[in-house]
Amino acid sequence: MAGSGNRVVTFMGPMKMELQTFDYPKLITPKGKKANHGAILKIVTTNICGSDQHIYHGRFAAPMGMVMGHEMTGEVIEVGPDVEFIKTGDLCSVPFNVSCGRCRNCKERHTDVCMNVNDAVDCGAYGFNLGGWQGGQSDYLMVPYADWNLLPFPDKDQAMEKIRDLTLLSDILPTGFHGLMEAGAKVGSTVYIAGAGPVGRCAAAGARLIGASCIIVADTNRARLDLMKNNGCEVVDLTKDTPVADQIEAILGKREVDCGVDCVGLEAHGCGPEADSEHSEAVINTLIEVVRAGGAMGVPGIYTDADPKASTDLTKKGQLPVDFGKAWIKSPKLTAGQAPIMHYNRDLMMAILWDRMPYLGAMLNTEIITLEQAPDAYKTFSEGSPKKFVIDPHGSVKKAA
Amino acid sequence: MAGSGNRVVTFMGPMKMELQTFDYPKLITPKGKKANHGAILKIVTTNICGSDQHIYHGRFAAPMGMVMGHEMTGEVIEVGPDVEFIKTGDLCSVPFNVSCGRCRNCKERHTDVCMNVNDAVDCGAYGFNLGGWQGGQSDYLMVPYADWNLLPFPDKDQAMEKIRDLTLLSDILPTGFHGLMEAGAKVGSTVYIAGAGPVGRCAAAGARLIGASCIIVADTNRARLDLMKNNGCEVVDLTKDTPVADQIEAILGKREVDCGVDCVGLEAHGCGPEADSEHSEAVINTLIEVVRAGGAMGVPGIYTDADPKASTDLTKKGQLPVDFGKAWIKSPKLTAGQAPIMHYNRDLMMAILWDRMPYLGAMLNTEIITLEQAPDAYKTFSEGSPKKFVIDPHGSVKKAA
Amino acid sequence: MAGSGNRVVTFMGPMKMELQTFDYPKLITPKGKKANHGAILKIVTTNICGSDQHIYHGRFAAPMGMVMGHEMTGEVIEVGPDVEFIKTGDLCSVPFNVSCGRCRNCKERHTDVCMNVNDAVDCGAYGFNLGGWQGGQSDYLMVPYADWNLLPFPDKDQAMEKIRDLTLLSDILPTGFHGLMEAGAKVGSTVYIAGAGPVGRCAAAGARLIGASCIIVADTNRARLDLMKNNGCEVVDLTKDTPVADQIEAILGKREVDCGVDCVGLEAHGCGPEADSEHSEAVINTLIEVVRAGGAMGVPGIYTDADPKASTDLTKKGQLPVDFGKAWIKSPKLTAGQAPIMHYNRDLMMAILWDRMPYLGAMLNTEIITLEQAPDAYKTFSEGSPKKFVIDPHGSVKKAA
Amino acid sequence: MAGSGNRVVTFMGPMKMELQTFDYPKLITPKGKKANHGAILKIVTTNICGSDQHIYHGRFAAPMGMVMGHEMTGEVIEVGPDVEFIKTGDLCSVPFNVSCGRCRNCKERHTDVCMNVNDAVDCGAYGFNLGGWQGGQSDYLMVPYADWNLLPFPDKDQAMEKIRDLTLLSDILPTGFHGLMEAGAKVGSTVYIAGAGPVGRCAAAGARLIGASCIIVADTNRARLDLMKNNGCEVVDLTKDTPVADQIEAILGKREVDCGVDCVGLEAHGCGPEADSEHSEAVINTLIEVVRAGGAMGVPGIYTDADPKASTDLTKKGQLPVDFGKAWIKSPKLTAGQAPIMHYNRDLMMAILWDRMPYLGAMLNTEIITLEQAPDAYKTFSEGSPKKFVIDPHGSVKKAA
Repeated sequence: MAGSGNRVVTFMGPMKMELQTFDYPKLITPKGKKANHGAILKIVTTNICGSDQHIYHGRFAAPMGMVMGHEMTGEVIEVGPDVEFIKTGDLCSVPFNVSCGRCRNCKERHTDVCMNVNDAVDCGAYGFNLGGWQGGQSDYLMVPYADWNLLPFPDKDQAMEKIRDLTLLSDILPTGFHGLMEAGAKVGSTVYIAGAGPVGRCAAAGARLIGASCIIVADTNRARLDLMKNNGCEVVDLTKDTPVADQIEAILGKREVDCGVDCVGLEAHGCGPEADSEHSEAVINTLIEVVRAGGAMGVPGIYTDADPKASTDLTKKGQLPVDFGKAWIKSPKLTAGQAPIMHYNRDLMMAILWDRMPYLGAMLNTEIITLEQAPDAYKTFSEGSPKKFVIDPHGSVKKAA
Repeated sequence: MAGSGNRVVTFMGPMKMELQTFDYPKLITPKGKKANHGAILKIVTTNICGSDQHIYHGRFAAPMGMVMGHEMTGEVIEVGPDVEFIKTGDLCSVPFNVSCGRCRNCKERHTDVCMNVNDAVDCGAYGFNLGGWQGGQSDYLMVPYADWNLLPFPDKDQAMEKIRDLTLLSDILPTGFHGLMEAGAKVGSTVYIAGAGPVGRCAAAGARLIGASCIIVADTNRARLDLMKNNGCEVVDLTKDTPVADQIEAILGKREVDCGVDCVGLEAHGCGPEADSEHSEAVINTLIEVVRAGGAMGVPGIYTDADPKASTDLTKKGQLPVDFGKAWIKSPKLTAGQAPIMHYNRDLMMAILWDRMPYLGAMLNTEIITLEQAPDAYKTFSEGSPKKFVIDPHGSVKKAA
Repeated sequence: MAGSGNRVVTFMGPMKMELQTFDYPKLITPKGKKANHGAILKIVTTNICGSDQHIYHGRFAAPMGMVMGHEMTGEVIEVGPDVEFIKTGDLCSVPFNVSCGRCRNCKERHTDVCMNVNDAVDCGAYGFNLGGWQGGQSDYLMVPYADWNLLPFPDKDQAMEKIRDLTLLSDILPTGFHGLMEAGAKVGSTVYIAGAGPVGRCAAAGARLIGASCIIVADTNRARLDLMKNNGCEVVDLTKDTPVADQIEAILGKREVDCGVDCVGLEAHGCGPEADSEHSEAVINTLIEVVRAGGAMGVPGIYTDADPKASTDLTKKGQLPVDFGKAWIKSPKLTAGQAPIMHYNRDLMMAILWDRMPYLGAMLNTEIITLEQAPDAYKTFSEGSPKKFVIDPHGSVKKAA
Repeated sequence: MAGSGNRVVTFMGPMKMELQTFDYPKLITPKGKKANHGAILKIVTTNICGSDQHIYHGRFAAPMGMVMGHEMTGEVIEVGPDVEFIKTGDLCSVPFNVSCGRCRNCKERHTDVCMNVNDAVDCGAYGFNLGGWQGGQSDYLMVPYADWNLLPFPDKDQAMEKIRDLTLLSDILPTGFHGLMEAGAKVGSTVYIAGAGPVGRCAAAGARLIGASCIIVADTNRARLDLMKNNGCEVVDLTKDTPVADQIEAILGKREVDCGVDCVGLEAHGCGPEADSEHSEAVINTLIEVVRAGGAMGVPGIYTDADPKASTDLTKKGQLPVDFGKAWIKSPKLTAGQAPIMHYNRDLMMAILWDRMPYLGAMLNTEIITLEQAPDAYKTFSEGSPKKFVIDPHGSVKKAA
């Protein structure tokens, strides 16, 4: 049974995360309504995400005191009276998007743009200032519409054995995968993945899973590139003076790829001489250059028009100087936005459970930490660590190992 | 049999089109190679397109002396020895994209980005400085890869009766339709079409054909808006001070639509107080605003990074200040570029032949003209005429009527 | 408020329907569980369906005393405590498939094969011996998972004006449409629709809505064929000695069509000399013959392996002698089964509300009847009437007109 | 340059294949027309296919003296004057379907049902009595429409190193893959593959390539099942008395899979007590049973209505007693027919060239043989050998190794 308190990682302003103790969660929505459809989870794993870093850096507006965390896996310890199929004791992955399962968009599988869970915009998420849903870098979490949202693992023991992989199902593995799907990736595709952070690494793992041919990952971070190189990927080093297309040609014999995925977002840096400074449009314009005519781009990397630290006149308005003129003649297709996790998480779970991604752990390079270590991990991650940090609030992963 | 000469509409610099006489075309490619796969057509109809206007205005770089025209319908009067299925006497629609039918992209139905017909870029077209293929606002035209490219009409007499509609198959009807398809339009969709020029009008007709529900066409041109209004569309008047989303709400009861189509391109004007001046990014950013979360946008309107008259620092670089930050949270999908005509022309031909678009003629408001009248028609069209000009070089349409 | 009773059309054995009075429905599932997610509807319209006829004829096993009806439209008069978005007073269309909105299949938009609403098979429906859900040819109806299942009309007065068309959204319009979609129908397609009953007529109307070109409807019933012919369709008269392919050739100039839709099901008759007798495989094998190589077939017409009156050795086993050998070389695609109504009903509603199907009423030839007239209407329908019978239990349609 | 003769494997009646010497091929079609679009290939590898076995067994009607072989890879040694992009010296895979690249079906990527290469039916193939195209179990082969049909490998030396895998691109790897795609297989899918012959083994390899989860292969042949088991697949032994669904449940914990692929065709045997005898409908009906509601089936296994040895009254008519009644309620989707090889071969080539199928060789268990050994290999294959026989007419593979 649950304790009296709930330790939570709290945003206390840019570069400041604190562990605080909140009340144990209730079956109540952010707007104070009874959530008979909800469930309370005892968190088993809860990861720190690259998008948490945007908040940490003060680049994605969030209120002081907001509880962080949107990548949760947990055991159901309480269900509301309207929950029929999820049972106490189920070990479940929580899709990071909060969705109702009852609006037009949810019915059309667009759970990334649910119309009922956020008054401000058609999009909800935990710990993200998108509807007020409390984050889950914590001991316990309330999940609304539990029958709709939760993905139960078929066998708890088997799941705990593979928990380092399964913990990625709440966000970054489906997110990277969504980027690939929107980029039209399939068997034999050549893929350029911008960013060797955790989402980029998941995109690379996903590309391998679906039988993509040449998988190129680009970054300015040497340690992350080495991790990719040691795990069967080609790499583009953006700090080099060699232009990206030249580096691709050296790998592939062609200057263009079939598919491009932006796993970076608004804090993008430039290439070569501009690798040291932020150029928010750099990734988008590189994709436009290196994706072949008739190819496509997926942009799960986050952009916003509410960046408190935007530095140029355009980014202050939420605008990017996009190479649209160069793009047009190439018949480009671009899809941006959050991944609808539920579209992919069951399929990817099955692939993990049947051992189809043996390389996933090595590519992610996961470190299990305690809740107390979380604030420090934000800092280490921010400094470019090639690790994925997974918080184990109750020591469940340790115990299972 | 063909005469000794070939009258052609020639680009002699911005705002200057001239009728000249060239040699009768030969089965020779722009690079001087024998085109045994080609056919010579006696032109029956050849339309003036909105994209011709970009060239006319000096906004899409083209060499002096270039023969204009990419919307051709004609009768085959000669075939090369490797043409097997197209026969002399066939009345055919010519897709404006030149494509080889043998490269990867053609095999994958991306005839808009054929890899073999233009050394400069993976994209070819007649009369458009894209591979040097001579335009067809003329008496005769050489069509390469005739078996692949040409769409023969099943019955010549029937076709001549419906020639005012069928002449649209070479470009603008499939182009508008492609915009709709890429915008995800289907039965019941609410659609916002930017631009009431001929492509926009075809998009509106296409939306009606597929059973879209609310079809809204936006423009600054009152005569063109009236034409749309009189033919069953809703209209947004961009010269009004009422913001676009407010005008949509007044029509639909909602501030957003399912699908957006840009039938304007780089010469876009702003709205309200900015309706008088060019704002190349205006249409794209309006679509980002008015298309609902999870919706999509098709951009058949032309953009280029080689606009000799670009006026802002960004457009000189081929860049647009895109509202990417506002867009991202809405999970947008955007597809730009030329339509692969061959993907749609047979289907649309069938719809026309079985009388499924009785409104098409009225919406297009076609005027049949002679080749001699073409230079003047460029001017009239440029001044905002709500007509579609169709050149009838040999008087065939007149005779048939 | 509701009265004390609920008049219902009851199946009392083959060829015997009776009007009985049941209790007013409760928010209780067929298994006796509280349905807080449910709503009670006061029925506004409830149609008699061709599939009801299979039950009436004793060809689809059903228990004595089963309440008939799965095509309901009604006003919400009571909602369970867990219904959040549907409100009392909403006028709604009820998809005939009962689905939970919480299982894998519902999440993947396959509401036709919901896994949670019927213990016997992954498929539930009202009034159909598929999960025990009480039918709605009645005064009142309980709809489970109301937020998920119900489609509210945006404006009640507008809806009552168009109620003769909107009443088709609960089943046959989406069902015919699903057949078309699975048959690959789109703009310009040539379509062969087997059966001129209400589903076949809806398929024909749907084909027109999406811009199909040549729409051929086949039947043995002259009155129904005449109705189709008078409403812009081509017809194949199966009682003629002229083979179907010959009749198609006379219409189209070709012996094959792009798409085939089976709107008949197990009570199919043969053609020509066999038009008088039942040949359950006749429609399937005709589609195999007349659909072109690479084309597709949709089979919304019902087949079952529990036909109490099956007459041949094969049909007793639920088997059909299918021309699989002839089919294979043509690369056929066939999709059978119930339509997932929710996939289409909102889109089709929008098309109706924006007047995109002005021909629908004439093609359906609807007659509004009282509940008392329902048993007779079963008989009239069974005898081949070219009408669609719509029951108006409370006289609401009459009042609105 | 080519020698004076062309050794060919010739069908001399059921169970009788002979090596004969024909003339060196000419650029002439079966109808005697000049094929300027064609190329002559010196065969590097040419495989014996399971479908050749249907001919060998006298189950697929073929004329005496027909040259066998449709799985060819070869070096171009001569091109017709209309061939522009394929060059002498190119090492190419030949899709087994003969297609023109100019008809409606080819333009729509349905090269399996080309309308121009066979007068009898819309479908052509080498060595298969489908248009008279001479087979390629020979020294040399004429390939029509060479620019369209041939897939050149990017690097000849690299290709020769991987030739045992690349030789599968002409038919069985894309064929098995097509079965998967039509069965809706994707990441995480559970797949049941009927048949552990070469096509079934390729389907299993393809399922692994795309990240399917549980891959079950069924056969009556123990040696083939062992081969699959040793290469990471689950197996169902059809000779066991345990019903198929029970065997699946023992593997998967569920009695149904997501996807079913028929890699057997008309010579199917039954299960358990019926495993010894032919039951042409057995595979289809097993798929109907074990594929879940809403799932799909791909049927690349061959069926025909011209089986000279058909034994039942139904199969003599090309009919199968299909469990259609049981199927219907499950909303099944079934796609049969030849694979359009060109749809997949380039993608699969890329996957092979980038080492994404390291298991392919072991799963196929290829034996390289000479042309002289081919007639014996037909016999060995027919007796159930778990090998794939690849003929190396000129000793090229031997030399390269």
